Amino acid sequence: MDQKHALGVDIGGTKTAFGVVSDKGVIIFHGEVPTRDYPTPDELIKEIHAQISEAGYPDFFGIGIGAPNGNALTGNIEFAPNLMWKGIVPICSLFEEKFETRSILINDANAAAVGERMFGNAKDLDHFVTITLGTGLGSGIIIEGHLVEGQHGFAGEYGHIRVFPENGRLCGCGRNGCLETYVSSTGVVRTFKEWINEMPSDSLLTKIENPDALAIFDCWKKKDAFATRIVDYTAQILGRSLADFSCFSNPQAFVLFGGIAQSGQGFVDKVKIELEKNIIEPLKGKVEIRLSLLHDENAAILGSAATTFWKFN
Amino acid sequence: MDQKHALGVDIGGTKTAFGVVSDKGVIIFHGEVPTRDYPTPDELIKEIHAQISEAGYPDFFGIGIGAPNGNALTGNIEFAPNLMWKGIVPICSLFEEKFETRSILINDANAAAVGERMFGNAKDLDHFVTITLGTGLGSGIIIEGHLVEGQHGFAGEYGHIRVFPENGRLCGCGRNGCLETYVSSTGVVRTFKEWINEMPSDSLLTKIENPDALAIFDCWKKKDAFATRIVDYTAQILGRSLADFSCFSNPQAFVLFGGIAQSGQGFVDKVKIELEKNIIEPLKGKVEIRLSLLHDENAAILGSAATTFWKFN
Repeated sequence: MDQKHALGVDIGGTKTAFGVVSDKGVIIFHGEVPTRDYPTPDELIKEIHAQISEAGYPDFFGIGIGAPNGNALTGNIEFAPNLMWKGIVPICSLFEEKFETRSILINDANAAAVGERMFGNAKDLDHFVTITLGTGLGSGIIIEGHLVEGQHGFAGEYGHIRVFPENGRLCGCGRNGCLETYVSSTGVVRTFKEWINEMPSDSLLTKIENPDALAIFDCWKKKDAFATRIVDYTAQILGRSLADFSCFSNPQAFVLFGGIAQSGQGFVDKVKIELEKNIIEPLKGKVEIRLSLLHDENAAILGSAATTFWKFN
Repeated sequence: MDQKHALGVDIGGTKTAFGVVSDKGVIIFHGEVPTRDYPTPDELIKEIHAQISEAGYPDFFGIGIGAPNGNALTGNIEFAPNLMWKGIVPICSLFEEKFETRSILINDANAAAVGERMFGNAKDLDHFVTITLGTGLGSGIIIEGHLVEGQHGFAGEYGHIRVFPENGRLCGCGRNGCLETYVSSTGVVRTFKEWINEMPSDSLLTKIENPDALAIFDCWKKKDAFATRIVDYTAQILGRSLADFSCFSNPQAFVLFGGIAQSGQGFVDKVKIELEKNIIEPLKGKVEIRLSLLHDENAAILGSAATTFWKFN
C-alpha cells in the first residue's frame, strides 16, 4: 500500500472533483466529472478508478470523501435531495470495495479544519477554529490537536448561534438571528437587500443586477461607500461574535475560509479590529484572526485527504 | 505514599475549608479555619498540617487547591484583592514543602466539572459542561473525557458570552449583556430590582428587605407569582443560551451547580423546556439538563481532590 498518498473526493450535486494528494499536501493528480452523468454511485466510482489507474496511481493510504447528507458515523449518504442516488447509499463501502483500501466520510467544515492544520495556515496551532463562509457559516474546532465532533456530530455549528436572539433574521433552520443569516454569502446579500432603499444613486452597485456577495466585496475593494458599509457591518457582526466565542474554547486563532473571507486581507483586518474591541480583557491581543491558505477550489479535496492521514495515522 | 486519599483545599477570602477525600469521593476528614487569622500563608498551611496530622492522616496522593486569583499555569496566587497576602504567593510550592507531596492549583469552575465527572452526576458522561451559578456564572467543559482549559486558561467562560449584545446589562467585565448579568445570584437580584415597580402589593417579596436570590427562589417555591416571573425569566435566558451553546461542543448534558440551580428539580425542568424550544432541530431531545450531585458546601473540596486524582493519574 502506498503510505504517502491519499485520495480526496468531493461529491457535489453538480460535479464530483477528486485528487491524489501527497502527505505534504501536494495534489499530484486532479480529475473532475459531472455527477449527474452517473445514475448509480458504482458507475461514478468505476469512472474515478479508471481515470486514476490510467494515470498510474493504483493504490492509496486511504480515501477521504466529502458528500451532501453524508453521515460520518455510518459512512452512508442518507436521502440527499441534491443527488440522483436516492435513499441510503453506502458510499464508503462502495469505494472500499473498488479501491481495496479504507475510507472515511467527512463533514466539510471539519475537513477544512484538518486541512488547515495539516497543509494550510494552522500548521503551528493546537487550538483553533476554522470559520467557513459559504452559503452558510460552518466551523471546525481543534482543541489540543484533536478535532471536536461532539456527541452527535454537531459540534462546531457556530453558524446557528443566535447573535440577535430577540428580533433577528429568519434562518433556514427555522429560528431567528443565527450568525449565518448575517455572516455568509447569503447574509451579505440579505444585508444589501435590506438596505437597498438607502443605496446612493452613484454607488457602483446600482449598475449590477442582483449582485452576489463577491460582487459586493469587489465594489468595496473599489472603495464604493455603500459596499463598504455592508462589508463593515458583516465584519462587525463576525468580529464581535468571535470575541464572544473565544469564551468557549479560548483558541489561539480563528482561521477564515471561503469566498468572501478570502477576498483579501482587508476583511480579516476589519474582523480583527472588531474582535479586539469586543473581547474580554484577559484575552485582548491574544486571539489571532488568520486567512486560510487553502485555495477555494481544491480545499475540499485537500481537507478530505488530510482527514484520511489524520484519522488513520 | 497514600495512593487512595487526596487533600482538597478551598481558600476563600473569609474561610479556608479543607478535607481528606478518598478516591471514591468520601470526605473522611473535614476542617475549616478563618483565613484572616493567618497573616502569612505559611501559618495557614502549618495549621492545616497540624490538624490533619493530629487526626492521623500524615500523607497524600496529592493536594488540590482552589484559591481566588489562582494561576493554574504557575501555581501562584497573584494579587488577590480579597486576601491579606499581597503580591505573588507561590501557594503550590508552600503546600508541597510542608506536606512533601505534589499539588495543583485549580479554577473552581473546572474543578466542579472534574468533581462531577469523578464523584457526581456525570460519571457516565464523556461530553458535558457544568454551569456553576454563584455570584457569577462559571463553566467547565469536558470533551471526550478531557477537561478543556484553552490556550490561555480561559476556556469555558460562558458567563461572558453576550446574550443581549445590543442593549444588555452592564457587566463587571466592562461589557454589556453578558449571560452572567442575567443568570447568577447577582443576575436574579438585578431582575428583581429592575422589575420592582411592577411588584404586586400582595407578593411575599414585599415582606423581605433586599431579598437575595435564594429568598426569591424560596418565594417561587411558595408559588408567589412575582417570584415565579423572575425565576421563569432566569430559566428562559439560561435555557435558550444553552440551546445556542450546544452548537459549540454538542455535549450530552449540561450539569447545573450552585445555590439557585440546586434549589430544586423545578428550575432544571424549566431550563430544559426552554432549551428544547430553542435548540436546532437535529439536537432536539438529545441534550440533557442535569442537577449537580455535589453538595454546595463540600463541592470545592471534592472538586479540588478529584482534579488531583484526575491530573496525576
